[in-house]
Amino acid sequence: MSDDLPQHGPRVLTVPPGEDRERLTCPDCGYIAYRNPLIVVGSVASWAGPDGEERILLCRRAIEPRLGFWTLPAGYMEERESSMEGAAREAWEEARARIEIDSLLAVYDIPRISQVQLIYRARLLSPDVAPGPESEEVALFRWEEIPWEELAFPTVRWALREHRDRRGRSDYAPAVNPTPDRLALWDRML
Amino acid sequence: MSDDLPQHGPRVLTVPPGEDRERLTCPDCGYIAYRNPLIVVGSVASWAGPDGEERILLCRRAIEPRLGFWTLPAGYMEERESSMEGAAREAWEEARARIEIDSLLAVYDIPRISQVQLIYRARLLSPDVAPGPESEEVALFRWEEIPWEELAFPTVRWALREHRDRRGRSDYAPAVNPTPDRLALWDRML
Repeated sequence: MSDDLPQHGPRVLTVPPGEDRERLTCPDCGYIAYRNPLIVVGSVASWAGPDGEERILLCRRAIEPRLGFWTLPAGYMEERESSMEGAAREAWEEARARIEIDSLLAVYDIPRISQVQLIYRARLLSPDVAPGPESEEVALFRWEEIPWEELAFPTVRWALREHRDRRGRSDYAPAVNPTPDRLALWDRML
Repeated sequence: MSDDLPQHGPRVLTVPPGEDRERLTCPDCGYIAYRNPLIVVGSVASWAGPDGEERILLCRRAIEPRLGFWTLPAGYMEERESSMEGAAREAWEEARARIEIDSLLAVYDIPRISQVQLIYRARLLSPDVAPGPESEEVALFRWEEIPWEELAFPTVRWALREHRDRRGRSDYAPAVNPTPDRLALWDRML
């Protein structure tokens, strides 16, 4: 037996009775470990300073992957919460930020890692933010201050761009994964 | 030991190192069974007949729960597919329907059962539909023919109403769970 194979728990791929695809099962106890896509919930949360100019909350990651890079407050949705509650919970956990959800900004599909991201547009109820355990630092950025070269993930950049495009709008279709043309346009705007 | 407790597989609630909440773990092998919300993907798929009048695809369930009741083609999103691909797959599996996704119609949160439903508006590429293994019958309904009293789940009714409200619109915010006022309005419209 190869040392690479787990020797306990669900580890055998087999098609359970009545199903149409392989599932990871435990040959010892019969447990079926269903693997389904995970939902990430997050927000583009902003604060309008005394000058009326919008500032967007970003968090510098204190954990891998992409330690030290800036991200939106976001994370895996938990059981028994709504997606909006999850986005608000993540803003609190990562940036000690209290937010009010406004609308759904984007739905991003990342099938390679079986992930769906629901990113909400939100308003900070106060500019007082502080790093939670998974953040090295949190800050409010004016648009021209955003550290584009130090963002943690492509979807962070996408969501920020889409947020900018929807300023002042209240009834809009949420963004989806950008087309290559749209990505090229954003690259030229940097 | 109670007969009600499983005696194999993940069955003990404990807080794993570095986490902030209890997870179901297997005391024999240490496997942690993370439980996260599941994504249901589905569609309100319609066909404009020769008279130009819209007909909406519904499926009569051949499986529990709600066997014999009418539902939208929908089901659990699988790994390594996008949410739109999942919605199209479900339309094929349940109604042998080929659809083209148009836009995101609704995002429903059902925290009681840890479920998020992404319901798309879609166009049938052909009116030829047929029951898949999980459907007793499939049919295209004019609006006034919809069997409101025989719908399988509240979200089916919600999505149909929201679809109706968005006729002819192309850039709209997806619906969320209806408010009590909105539900009462729909009840009066029956």
